[in-house]
Amino acid sequence: MNSPSDPFTDFLTRARYAETDQMGVVHHSNHFVWFECGRSEYCRARGFSYRQLEEETGCLLMVAEARCRYKAPLFYDDTVRIRTRLQKSRRRLVIFSYQVFRDPDILVAEGETIHLVADRSGKPALLPDEYFRLLNSSPPFHA
Amino acid sequence: MNSPSDPFTDFLTRARYAETDQMGVVHHSNHFVWFECGRSEYCRARGFSYRQLEEETGCLLMVAEARCRYKAPLFYDDTVRIRTRLQKSRRRLVIFSYQVFRDPDILVAEGETIHLVADRSGKPALLPDEYFRLLNSSPPFHA
Amino acid sequence: MNSPSDPFTDFLTRARYAETDQMGVVHHSNHFVWFECGRSEYCRARGFSYRQLEEETGCLLMVAEARCRYKAPLFYDDTVRIRTRLQKSRRRLVIFSYQVFRDPDILVAEGETIHLVADRSGKPALLPDEYFRLLNSSPPFHA
Amino acid sequence: MNSPSDPFTDFLTRARYAETDQMGVVHHSNHFVWFECGRSEYCRARGFSYRQLEEETGCLLMVAEARCRYKAPLFYDDTVRIRTRLQKSRRRLVIFSYQVFRDPDILVAEGETIHLVADRSGKPALLPDEYFRLLNSSPPFHA
Repeated sequence: MNSPSDPFTDFLTRARYAETDQMGVVHHSNHFVWFECGRSEYCRARGFSYRQLEEETGCLLMVAEARCRYKAPLFYDDTVRIRTRLQKSRRRLVIFSYQVFRDPDILVAEGETIHLVADRSGKPALLPDEYFRLLNSSPPFHA
Repeated sequence: MNSPSDPFTDFLTRARYAETDQMGVVHHSNHFVWFECGRSEYCRARGFSYRQLEEETGCLLMVAEARCRYKAPLFYDDTVRIRTRLQKSRRRLVIFSYQVFRDPDILVAEGETIHLVADRSGKPALLPDEYFRLLNSSPPFHA
Repeated sequence: MNSPSDPFTDFLTRARYAETDQMGVVHHSNHFVWFECGRSEYCRARGFSYRQLEEETGCLLMVAEARCRYKAPLFYDDTVRIRTRLQKSRRRLVIFSYQVFRDPDILVAEGETIHLVADRSGKPALLPDEYFRLLNSSPPFHA
Repeated sequence: MNSPSDPFTDFLTRARYAETDQMGVVHHSNHFVWFECGRSEYCRARGFSYRQLEEETGCLLMVAEARCRYKAPLFYDDTVRIRTRLQKSRRRLVIFSYQVFRDPDILVAEGETIHLVADRSGKPALLPDEYFRLLNSSPPFHA
Protein backbone atom coordinates (compact mmCIF):
# COMPACT_ATOMS: atom_id res chain seq x y z
CA MET A 1 0.00 0.00 0.00
CA ASN A 2 2.86 2.27 0.90
CA SER A 3 4.59 3.40 -2.31
CA PRO A 4 7.62 5.64 -2.83
CA SER A 5 5.38 8.14 -4.57
CA ASP A 6 3.05 8.32 -1.59
CA PRO A 7 5.19 7.64 1.42
CA PHE A 8 3.45 7.45 4.73
CA THR A 9 4.27 6.00 8.11
CA ASP A 10 1.90 4.20 10.43
CA PHE A 11 1.93 4.50 14.19
CA LEU A 12 -0.01 1.95 16.20
CA THR A 13 -1.39 2.51 19.69
CA ARG A 14 -4.33 1.47 21.81
CA ALA A 15 -7.00 3.81 23.08
CA ARG A 16 -6.31 4.26 26.79
CA TYR A 17 -8.97 4.26 29.49
CA ALA A 18 -7.81 7.72 30.56
CA GLU A 19 -8.43 8.93 26.99
CA THR A 20 -12.15 8.12 27.12
CA ASP A 21 -14.74 10.54 28.44
CA GLN A 22 -18.19 10.12 29.95
CA MET A 23 -19.69 9.78 26.47
CA GLY A 24 -17.94 6.38 26.53
CA VAL A 25 -15.66 7.22 23.60
CA VAL A 26 -12.18 8.63 23.13
CA HIS A 27 -12.17 12.36 23.85
CA HIS A 28 -11.56 14.34 20.66
CA SER A 29 -8.55 16.25 22.03
CA ASN A 30 -6.50 13.03 22.13
CA HIS A 31 -6.37 12.84 18.35
CA PHE A 32 -3.98 15.78 18.35
CA VAL A 33 -1.69 13.95 20.75
CA TRP A 34 -1.80 10.93 18.45
CA PHE A 35 -1.02 13.12 15.44
CA GLU A 36 2.12 14.14 17.30
CA CYS A 37 3.01 10.49 17.93
CA GLY A 38 2.46 9.95 14.21
CA ARG A 39 4.93 12.74 13.40
CA SER A 40 7.52 11.22 15.75
CA GLU A 41 7.11 7.86 14.05
CA TYR A 42 7.30 9.47 10.60
CA CYS A 43 10.69 10.95 11.54
CA ARG A 44 11.94 7.73 13.12
CA ALA A 45 11.09 5.76 9.96
CA ARG A 46 13.34 8.20 8.09
CA GLY A 47 16.36 7.69 10.28
CA PHE A 48 16.15 10.48 12.83
CA SER A 49 14.19 11.35 15.92
CA TYR A 50 12.35 14.59 16.34
CA ARG A 51 14.10 14.80 19.70
CA GLN A 52 17.44 14.76 17.91
CA LEU A 53 16.27 17.53 15.57
CA GLU A 54 15.39 19.71 18.57
CA GLU A 55 18.56 18.92 20.50
CA GLU A 56 21.12 19.07 17.68
CA THR A 57 19.84 22.00 15.67
CA GLY A 58 17.73 23.95 18.16
CA CYS A 59 14.98 23.90 15.54
CA LEU A 60 11.38 23.54 16.63
CA LEU A 61 8.36 22.75 14.49
CA MET A 62 5.84 25.04 16.17
CA VAL A 63 2.20 24.15 15.56
CA ALA A 64 0.55 27.06 13.74
CA GLU A 65 -2.68 25.27 12.96
CA ALA A 66 -4.27 21.94 13.89
CA ARG A 67 -7.44 20.46 12.52
CA CYS A 68 -9.33 17.20 12.81
CA ARG A 69 -12.53 15.84 11.25
CA TYR A 70 -14.18 13.03 13.20
CA LYS A 71 -16.14 10.39 11.30
CA ALA A 72 -16.69 7.64 13.83
CA PRO A 73 -16.06 7.12 17.53
CA LEU A 74 -13.18 5.15 19.01
CA PHE A 75 -13.56 3.07 22.14
CA TYR A 76 -11.30 2.06 25.01
CA ASP A 77 -8.84 -0.65 24.02
CA ASP A 78 -9.42 -0.17 20.28
CA THR A 79 -6.23 -0.59 18.30
CA VAL A 80 -5.65 2.71 16.54
CA ARG A 81 -3.52 3.26 13.47
CA ILE A 82 -2.35 6.80 12.73
CA ARG A 83 -1.12 7.21 9.16
CA THR A 84 1.09 10.26 8.72
CA ARG A 85 2.03 11.91 5.44
CA LEU A 86 4.20 14.91 4.69
CA GLN A 87 1.77 17.08 2.77
CA LYS A 88 4.04 19.98 2.04
CA SER A 89 7.54 20.97 3.07
CA ARG A 90 9.37 24.23 2.77
CA ARG A 91 12.41 25.33 4.70
CA ARG A 92 10.16 27.54 6.85
CA LEU A 93 6.89 25.61 6.88
CA VAL A 94 5.86 21.97 7.04
CA ILE A 95 2.40 20.46 6.69
CA PHE A 96 1.55 16.95 7.86
CA SER A 97 -1.71 15.14 7.18
CA TYR A 98 -3.14 12.24 9.14
CA GLN A 99 -5.63 9.46 8.82
CA VAL A 100 -6.80 7.67 11.94
CA PHE A 101 -8.00 4.09 11.47
CA ARG A 102 -9.65 1.70 13.82
CA ASP A 103 -7.35 -1.16 13.06
CA PRO A 104 -7.01 -2.45 10.49
CA ASP A 105 -8.78 -0.13 8.06
CA ILE A 106 -11.86 1.71 9.28
CA LEU A 107 -11.19 5.40 8.75
CA VAL A 108 -12.43 7.23 11.85
CA ALA A 109 -10.76 10.63 11.57
CA GLU A 110 -8.62 12.81 9.34
CA GLY A 111 -6.58 15.87 10.08
CA GLU A 112 -3.74 18.23 9.33
CA THR A 113 -1.17 20.22 11.26
CA ILE A 114 0.74 23.22 9.92
CA HIS A 115 4.13 23.88 11.46
CA LEU A 116 6.42 26.90 11.36
CA VAL A 117 10.14 26.33 11.75
CA ALA A 118 11.44 28.34 14.71
CA ASP A 119 14.46 28.55 16.94
CA ARG A 120 14.31 28.09 20.72
CA SER A 121 13.33 31.70 21.24
CA GLY A 122 10.36 31.27 18.92
CA LYS A 123 11.87 33.30 16.06
CA PRO A 124 11.43 32.08 12.45
CA ALA A 125 14.22 29.76 11.35
CA LEU A 126 15.16 27.53 8.44
CA LEU A 127 15.03 23.75 8.63
CA PRO A 128 18.64 22.51 8.29
CA ASP A 129 19.42 20.88 4.94
CA GLU A 130 20.08 17.44 6.29
CA TYR A 131 16.77 17.25 8.16
CA PHE A 132 14.85 18.76 5.24
CA ARG A 133 16.23 15.99 3.04
CA LEU A 134 15.45 13.25 5.58
CA LEU A 135 11.93 14.57 6.08
CA ASN A 136 11.33 14.29 2.34
CA SER A 137 12.94 10.88 1.98
CA SER A 138 11.14 7.57 1.70
CA PRO A 139 11.61 5.18 4.59
CA PRO A 140 14.62 2.86 4.12
CA PHE A 141 12.38 -0.14 3.56
CA HIS A 142 11.22 1.51 0.34
CA ALA A 143 14.70 2.12 -1.04
CA MET B 1 -17.94 44.88 25.22
CA ASN B 2 -20.47 42.07 25.08
CA SER B 3 -23.54 43.24 23.15
CA PRO B 4 -26.86 41.48 22.50
CA SER B 5 -26.06 41.47 18.79
CA ASP B 6 -22.76 39.69 19.38
CA PRO B 7 -23.24 37.64 22.49
CA PHE B 8 -20.24 35.82 23.76
CA THR B 9 -19.20 34.33 27.06
CA ASP B 10 -15.75 34.44 28.62
CA PHE B 11 -14.19 31.61 30.57
CA LEU B 12 -11.11 32.37 32.66
CA THR B 13 -8.49 29.84 33.66
CA ARG B 14 -4.79 29.67 34.32
CA ALA B 15 -2.33 27.66 32.26
CA ARG B 16 -1.40 24.65 34.39
CA TYR B 17 2.12 23.31 34.78
CA ALA B 18 0.91 19.93 33.50
CA GLU B 19 -0.34 21.68 30.36
CA THR B 20 3.14 22.84 29.35
CA ASP B 21 5.53 20.75 27.29
CA GLN B 22 9.30 20.66 26.94
CA MET B 23 9.15 23.60 24.52
CA GLY B 24 8.30 25.59 27.66
CA VAL B 25 4.86 26.60 26.40
CA VAL B 26 1.32 25.27 26.69
CA HIS B 27 0.90 22.17 24.52
CA HIS B 28 -1.40 22.88 21.59
CA SER B 29 -3.82 20.03 22.37
CA ASN B 30 -4.95 21.82 25.55
CA HIS B 31 -6.67 24.54 23.57
CA PHE B 32 -9.33 22.02 22.58
CA VAL B 33 -9.95 21.19 26.23
CA TRP B 34 -10.28 24.91 26.96
CA PHE B 35 -12.71 25.33 24.05
CA GLU B 36 -14.83 22.72 25.78
CA CYS B 37 -14.65 24.65 29.05
CA GLY B 38 -15.69 27.69 27.04
CA ARG B 39 -18.77 25.86 25.74
CA SER B 40 -19.71 24.78 29.27
CA GLU B 41 -19.44 28.37 30.45
CA TYR B 42 -21.43 29.60 27.42
CA CYS B 43 -24.29 27.28 28.43
CA ARG B 44 -24.08 28.19 32.11
CA ALA B 45 -24.34 31.90 31.27
CA ARG B 46 -27.62 31.07 29.51
CA GLY B 47 -29.20 29.31 32.42
CA PHE B 48 -28.45 25.66 31.86
CA SER B 49 -25.53 23.28 32.18
CA TYR B 50 -24.35 21.09 29.38
CA ARG B 51 -24.46 18.28 31.94
CA GLN B 52 -28.18 18.91 32.40
CA LEU B 53 -28.70 18.82 28.63
CA GLU B 54 -27.04 15.41 28.45
CA GLU B 55 -28.83 14.00 31.49
CA GLU B 56 -32.34 15.38 30.89
CA THR B 57 -32.65 14.95 27.15
CA GLY B 58 -30.09 12.28 26.30
CA CYS B 59 -28.80 14.67 23.63
CA LEU B 60 -25.09 14.86 22.94
CA LEU B 61 -23.22 17.47 20.94
CA MET B 62 -20.71 15.19 19.21
CA VAL B 63 -17.62 16.94 17.89
CA ALA B 64 -17.51 16.48 14.11
CA GLU B 65 -14.66 18.88 13.49
CA ALA B 66 -12.23 20.86 15.63
CA ARG B 67 -9.75 23.45 14.48
CA CYS B 68 -7.34 25.87 16.06
CA ARG B 69 -4.95 28.52 14.72
CA TYR B 70 -2.10 29.45 17.05
CA LYS B 71 -0.71 32.99 16.93
CA ALA B 72 1.41 33.25 20.05
CA PRO B 73 2.57 30.94 22.82
CA LEU B 74 1.07 30.71 26.28
CA PHE B 75 3.17 30.08 29.37
CA TYR B 76 2.63 28.38 32.70
CA ASP B 77 0.55 30.49 35.07
CA ASP B 78 -0.67 32.84 32.35
CA THR B 79 -4.24 33.89 32.89
CA VAL B 80 -6.16 32.70 29.86
CA ARG B 81 -9.49 34.02 28.65
CA ILE B 82 -11.52 31.83 26.29
CA ARG B 83 -14.22 33.78 24.48
CA THR B 84 -16.96 31.55 23.09
CA ARG B 85 -19.53 32.48 20.47
CA LEU B 86 -22.35 30.50 18.90
CA GLN B 87 -21.46 30.79 15.24
CA LYS B 88 -24.33 28.82 13.80
CA SER B 89 -27.15 26.76 15.24
CA ARG B 90 -29.51 24.35 13.60
CA ARG B 91 -31.55 21.65 15.26
CA ARG B 92 -29.05 19.06 14.02
CA LEU B 93 -25.80 21.02 13.93
CA VAL B 94 -24.13 23.63 16.09
CA ILE B 95 -20.95 25.60 15.43
CA PHE B 96 -19.01 27.39 18.15
CA SER B 97 -16.10 29.75 17.59
CA TYR B 98 -13.43 30.71 20.10
CA GLN B 99 -10.85 33.33 20.75
CA VAL B 100 -8.12 32.65 23.28
CA PHE B 101 -6.59 35.69 24.95
CA ARG B 102 -3.64 36.05 27.23
CA ASP B 103 -5.47 38.12 29.77
CA PRO B 104 -6.64 40.76 29.33
CA ASP B 105 -6.59 41.14 25.57
CA ILE B 106 -3.69 39.62 23.65
CA LEU B 107 -5.21 37.27 21.09
CA VAL B 108 -3.11 34.09 21.06
CA ALA B 109 -5.37 31.59 19.28
CA GLU B 110 -8.64 31.20 17.43
CA GLY B 111 -10.69 28.16 16.62
CA GLU B 112 -13.98 26.49 15.81
CA THR B 113 -15.77 23.29 16.67
CA ILE B 114 -18.61 21.77 14.65
CA HIS B 115 -21.04 19.58 16.55
CA LEU B 116 -23.68 17.12 15.41
CA VAL B 117 -26.65 16.53 17.66
CA ALA B 118 -26.91 12.83 18.53
CA ASP B 119 -28.64 10.55 20.99
CA ARG B 120 -26.77 8.29 23.41
CA SER B 121 -26.37 5.60 20.79
CA GLY B 122 -24.69 8.07 18.45
CA LYS B 123 -27.65 8.37 16.05
CA PRO B 124 -28.59 11.79 14.66
CA ALA B 125 -31.10 13.62 16.83
CA LEU B 126 -32.76 17.02 17.11
CA LEU B 127 -31.83 19.52 19.78
CA PRO B 128 -34.93 19.93 22.01
CA ASP B 129 -36.76 23.24 21.54
CA GLU B 130 -36.09 24.57 25.00
CA TYR B 131 -32.33 24.05 24.75
CA PHE B 132 -32.21 25.39 21.20
CA ARG B 133 -33.85 28.57 22.46
CA LEU B 134 -31.53 28.87 25.48
CA LEU B 135 -28.47 28.29 23.32
CA ASN B 136 -29.53 31.20 21.09
CA SER B 137 -30.45 33.51 23.93
CA SER B 138 -28.37 36.33 25.29
CA PRO B 139 -27.07 35.89 28.82
CA PRO B 140 -29.53 37.17 31.44
CA PHE B 141 -27.30 40.13 32.24
CA HIS B 142 -28.06 41.44 28.74
CA ALA B 143 -31.82 41.17 29.03
CA MET C 1 12.64 -13.54 33.59
CA ASN C 2 8.92 -13.95 34.10
CA SER C 3 8.25 -17.04 36.24
CA PRO C 4 4.95 -18.64 37.31
CA SER C 5 5.82 -17.84 40.92
CA ASP C 6 6.24 -14.15 40.13
CA PRO C 7 4.02 -13.49 37.17
CA PHE C 8 4.16 -10.04 35.73
CA THR C 9 3.27 -8.48 32.43
CA ASP C 10 5.22 -5.80 30.61
CA PHE C 11 3.65 -2.96 28.65
CA LEU C 12 5.87 -0.98 26.31
CA THR C 13 5.23 2.58 25.20
CA ARG C 14 7.16 5.68 24.27
CA ALA C 15 7.10 8.91 26.21
CA ARG C 16 5.01 11.33 24.15
CA TYR C 17 5.90 14.97 23.54
CA ALA C 18 2.56 15.98 25.04
CA GLU C 19 3.50 14.08 28.20
CA THR C 20 6.53 16.27 28.87
CA ASP C 21 6.36 19.52 30.82
CA GLN C 22 8.46 22.67 30.88
CA MET C 23 10.96 20.94 33.18
CA GLY C 24 11.85 18.97 30.03
CA VAL C 25 10.80 15.63 31.52
CA VAL C 26 7.67 13.51 31.56
CA HIS C 27 5.07 15.03 33.89
CA HIS C 28 4.56 12.85 36.95
CA SER C 29 0.80 12.50 36.49
CA ASN C 30 1.36 10.42 33.34
CA HIS C 31 2.74 7.52 35.33
CA PHE C 32 -0.76 6.84 36.64
CA VAL C 33 -2.07 6.67 33.08
CA TRP C 34 0.73 4.22 32.23
CA PHE C 35 -0.11 2.12 35.31
CA GLU C 36 -3.60 1.83 33.84
CA CYS C 37 -2.17 0.74 30.49
CA GLY C 38 -0.12 -1.81 32.45
CA ARG C 39 -3.28 -3.19 34.07
CA SER C 40 -4.97 -3.47 30.67
CA GLU C 41 -2.00 -5.39 29.34
CA TYR C 42 -1.90 -7.59 32.43
CA CYS C 43 -5.50 -8.62 31.77
CA ARG C 44 -4.93 -9.12 28.05
CA ALA C 45 -1.99 -11.44 28.73
CA ARG C 46 -4.39 -13.56 30.79
CA GLY C 47 -6.97 -13.95 28.06
CA PHE C 48 -9.47 -11.21 28.72
CA SER C 49 -9.75 -7.50 28.27
CA TYR C 50 -10.65 -5.14 31.07
CA ARG C 51 -13.21 -3.71 28.63
CA GLN C 52 -14.86 -7.12 28.45
CA LEU C 53 -14.94 -7.35 32.25
CA GLU C 54 -16.76 -4.02 32.43
CA GLU C 55 -19.16 -4.78 29.60
CA GLU C 56 -20.00 -8.40 30.42
CA THR C 57 -20.23 -8.27 34.18
CA GLY C 58 -20.89 -4.61 34.94
CA CYS C 59 -17.99 -4.84 37.39
CA LEU C 60 -15.65 -1.89 37.79
CA LEU C 61 -12.30 -1.79 39.54
CA MET C 62 -12.58 1.64 41.16
CA VAL C 63 -9.29 3.22 42.16
CA ALA C 64 -9.29 3.70 45.93
CA GLU C 65 -5.65 4.67 46.23
CA ALA C 66 -2.82 5.43 43.83
CA ARG C 67 0.80 6.00 44.68
CA CYS C 68 4.04 6.51 42.81
CA ARG C 69 7.66 6.99 43.86
CA TYR C 70 9.87 8.68 41.27
CA LYS C 71 13.57 7.79 41.14
CA ALA C 72 14.74 9.24 37.85
CA PRO C 73 13.31 11.42 35.10
CA LEU C 74 11.99 10.17 31.77
CA PHE C 75 12.45 12.12 28.57
CA TYR C 76 10.48 12.54 25.36
CA ASP C 77 10.83 9.53 23.07
CA ASP C 78 12.26 7.28 25.78
CA THR C 79 11.03 3.74 25.48
CA VAL C 80 9.20 2.98 28.69
CA ARG C 81 8.46 -0.45 30.10
CA ILE C 82 5.70 -0.75 32.69
CA ARG C 83 5.89 -4.01 34.64
CA THR C 84 2.61 -4.90 36.33
CA ARG C 85 2.10 -7.43 39.10
CA LEU C 86 -1.01 -8.52 40.97
CA GLN C 87 0.02 -7.81 44.55
CA LYS C 88 -3.12 -8.98 46.27
CA SER C 89 -6.53 -10.13 45.14
CA ARG C 90 -9.73 -10.60 47.05
CA ARG C 91 -13.22 -10.77 45.65
CA ARG C 92 -13.81 -7.18 46.82
CA LEU C 93 -10.34 -5.67 46.57
CA VAL C 94 -7.41 -5.90 44.17
CA ILE C 95 -3.93 -4.40 44.51
CA PHE C 96 -1.58 -3.97 41.57
CA SER C 97 2.06 -2.93 41.81
CA TYR C 98 4.16 -1.40 39.06
CA GLN C 99 7.74 -0.83 38.10
CA VAL C 100 8.55 1.68 35.41
CA PHE C 101 11.77 1.11 33.49
CA ARG C 102 13.58 3.20 30.97
CA ASP C 103 14.04 0.42 28.48
CA PRO C 104 15.53 -2.02 28.92
CA ASP C 105 16.17 -2.06 32.64
CA ILE C 106 16.74 1.28 34.40
CA LEU C 107 14.17 1.48 37.17
CA VAL C 108 12.78 5.02 37.16
CA ALA C 109 9.58 4.70 39.21
CA GLU C 110 7.52 2.33 41.32
CA GLY C 111 3.94 2.44 42.42
CA GLU C 112 0.77 0.75 43.54
CA THR C 113 -2.95 1.10 42.97
CA ILE C 114 -5.65 -0.26 45.27
CA HIS C 115 -8.99 -1.06 43.65
CA LEU C 116 -12.40 -1.75 45.09
CA VAL C 117 -14.77 -3.92 43.10
CA ALA C 118 -17.99 -2.03 42.40
CA ASP C 119 -21.05 -2.21 40.19
CA ARG C 120 -22.01 0.53 37.72
CA SER C 121 -23.77 2.51 40.42
CA GLY C 122 -20.61 2.54 42.52
CA LYS C 123 -21.89 0.04 45.13
CA PRO C 124 -19.52 -2.65 46.45
CA ALA C 125 -19.62 -5.84 44.40
CA LEU C 126 -17.83 -9.17 44.10
CA LEU C 127 -15.48 -9.97 41.28
CA PRO C 128 -17.09 -12.80 39.26
CA ASP C 129 -15.39 -16.19 39.75
CA GLU C 130 -14.19 -16.54 36.20
CA TYR C 131 -12.44 -13.17 36.16
CA PHE C 132 -11.01 -13.70 39.63
CA ARG C 133 -9.46 -16.93 38.38
CA LEU C 134 -8.11 -15.33 35.19
CA LEU C 135 -6.66 -12.40 37.13
CA ASN C 136 -4.73 -14.86 39.31
CA SER C 137 -3.59 -17.05 36.44
CA SER C 138 -0.18 -17.03 34.82
CA PRO C 139 -0.07 -15.87 31.22
CA PRO C 140 -0.66 -18.71 28.72
CA PHE C 141 2.93 -18.56 27.51
CA HIS C 142 4.02 -19.73 30.96
CA ALA C 143 1.71 -22.73 31.14
CA MET D 1 -11.76 28.44 58.86
CA ASN D 2 -8.23 29.25 57.85
CA SER D 3 -6.14 30.07 60.95
CA PRO D 4 -2.53 31.20 61.27
CA SER D 5 -1.74 28.00 63.12
CA ASP D 6 -3.07 25.86 60.29
CA PRO D 7 -2.54 27.87 57.17
CA PHE D 8 -3.92 26.41 53.99
CA THR D 9 -4.89 27.78 50.64
CA ASP D 10 -7.91 26.79 48.58
CA PHE D 11 -7.95 26.47 44.82
CA LEU D 12 -11.30 26.29 43.07
CA THR D 13 -11.91 24.70 39.69
CA ARG D 14 -14.61 22.83 37.85
CA ALA D 15 -14.32 19.23 36.69
CA ARG D 16 -13.86 19.39 32.93
CA TYR D 17 -15.58 17.10 30.45
CA ALA D 18 -12.19 16.01 29.16
CA GLU D 19 -11.27 14.96 32.69
CA THR D 20 -14.06 12.38 32.89
CA ASP D 21 -13.68 8.80 31.68
CA GLN D 22 -16.11 6.17 30.46
CA MET D 23 -16.98 5.29 34.07
CA GLY D 24 -18.76 8.67 34.01
CA VAL D 25 -16.54 10.16 36.72
CA VAL D 26 -13.35 12.22 36.85
CA HIS D 27 -10.34 10.04 35.99
CA HIS D 28 -8.15 9.54 39.05
CA SER D 29 -4.97 10.84 37.37
CA ASN D 30 -6.44 14.37 37.25
CA HIS D 31 -6.23 14.74 41.00
CA PHE D 32 -2.45 14.98 40.69
CA VAL D 33 -2.82 17.81 38.20
CA TRP D 34 -5.18 19.56 40.61
CA PHE D 35 -2.69 19.06 43.46
CA GLU D 36 -0.21 20.95 41.31
CA CYS D 37 -2.71 23.76 40.77
CA GLY D 38 -3.18 23.77 44.53
CA ARG D 39 0.57 24.22 45.05
CA SER D 40 0.62 27.11 42.56
CA GLU D 41 -2.21 28.80 44.42
CA TYR D 42 -0.52 28.16 47.76
CA CYS D 43 2.55 30.04 46.51
CA ARG D 44 0.51 32.84 44.97
CA ALA D 45 -1.33 33.42 48.26
CA ARG D 46 2.10 33.92 49.86
CA GLY D 47 3.24 36.59 47.45
CA PHE D 48 5.21 34.69 44.82
CA SER D 49 4.53 32.48 41.87
CA TYR D 50 6.10 29.08 41.45
CA ARG D 51 7.01 30.27 37.95
CA GLN D 52 9.04 33.09 39.48
CA LEU D 53 10.81 30.62 41.78
CA GLU D 54 11.84 28.53 38.79
CA GLU D 55 12.87 31.49 36.65
CA GLU D 56 14.67 33.59 39.25
CA THR D 57 16.48 30.95 41.22
CA GLY D 58 16.67 27.99 38.84
CA CYS D 59 15.25 25.89 41.67
CA LEU D 60 12.81 23.12 40.88
CA LEU D 61 10.61 21.20 43.28
CA MET D 62 10.90 17.75 41.71
CA VAL D 63 8.14 15.32 42.65
CA ALA D 64 9.70 12.36 44.46
CA GLU D 65 6.45 10.78 45.55
CA ALA D 66 2.77 11.37 44.90
CA ARG D 67 -0.15 9.70 46.57
CA CYS D 68 -3.93 10.00 46.56
CA ARG D 69 -6.74 8.25 48.43
CA TYR D 70 -10.13 8.45 46.73
CA LYS D 71 -13.25 8.45 48.88
CA ALA D 72 -16.00 9.49 46.51
CA PRO D 73 -16.37 10.16 42.79
CA LEU D 74 -16.44 13.57 41.17
CA PHE D 75 -18.61 14.35 38.18
CA TYR D 76 -18.36 16.65 35.18
CA ASP D 77 -19.08 20.27 36.10
CA ASP D 78 -18.73 19.66 39.84
CA THR D 79 -17.09 22.59 41.58
CA VAL D 80 -13.94 21.24 43.15
CA ARG D 81 -12.02 22.80 46.02
CA ILE D 82 -8.40 21.74 46.51
CA ARG D 83 -7.08 22.63 49.96
CA THR D 84 -3.29 22.71 50.11
CA ARG D 85 -1.15 22.65 53.23
CA LEU D 86 2.60 22.72 53.69
CA GLN D 87 3.12 19.55 55.71
CA LYS D 88 6.86 19.76 56.12
CA SER D 89 9.57 22.02 54.78
CA ARG D 90 13.30 21.63 54.81
CA ARG D 91 15.80 23.39 52.61
CA ARG D 92 16.14 20.20 50.54
CA LEU D 93 12.69 18.64 50.87
CA VAL D 94 9.13 19.90 50.93
CA ILE D 95 5.93 17.96 51.61
CA PHE D 96 2.50 19.25 50.64
CA SER D 97 -0.80 17.66 51.66
CA TYR D 98 -4.13 18.10 49.92
CA GLN D 99 -7.80 17.67 50.55
CA VAL D 100 -10.19 17.62 47.62
CA PHE D 101 -13.74 18.72 48.32
CA ARG D 102 -16.83 18.67 46.20
CA ASP D 103 -17.78 22.23 46.90
CA PRO D 104 -18.44 23.35 49.50
CA ASP D 105 -17.37 20.67 51.95
CA ILE D 106 -17.75 17.04 50.91
CA LEU D 107 -14.30 15.47 51.23
CA VAL D 108 -13.76 13.27 48.16
CA ALA D 109 -10.01 12.69 48.17
CA GLU D 110 -6.83 13.28 50.13
CA GLY D 111 -3.21 13.13 49.11
CA GLU D 112 0.40 14.14 49.54
CA THR D 113 3.34 15.00 47.34
CA ILE D 114 6.98 14.89 48.42
CA HIS D 115 9.35 17.21 46.58
CA LEU D 116 13.11 17.35 46.40
CA VAL D 117 14.74 20.69 45.72
CA ALA D 118 16.91 20.48 42.60
CA ASP D 119 18.65 22.73 40.13
CA ARG D 120 17.89 22.72 36.40
CA SER D 121 20.23 19.81 35.80
CA GLY D 122 18.37 17.74 38.35
CA LYS D 123 21.10 17.91 41.01
CA PRO D 124 20.12 18.41 44.68
CA ALA D 125 19.93 22.06 45.67
CA LEU D 126 18.87 24.22 48.58
CA LEU D 127 15.72 26.29 48.54
CA PRO D 128 16.79 29.96 48.66
CA ASP D 129 16.17 31.66 52.01
CA GLU D 130 13.64 34.13 50.73
CA TYR D 131 11.43 31.49 49.15
CA PHE D 132 11.79 29.17 52.14
CA ARG D 133 10.50 31.98 54.32
CA LEU D 134 7.62 32.82 51.97
CA LEU D 135 6.64 29.17 51.70
CA ASN D 136 6.36 28.98 55.49
CA SER D 137 4.53 32.28 55.86
CA SER D 138 0.82 32.74 56.39
CA PRO D 139 -1.07 34.39 53.57
CA PRO D 140 -1.17 38.21 53.85
CA PHE D 141 -4.86 38.19 54.71
CA HIS D 142 -3.89 36.49 57.97
CA ALA D 143 -1.27 39.02 58.97
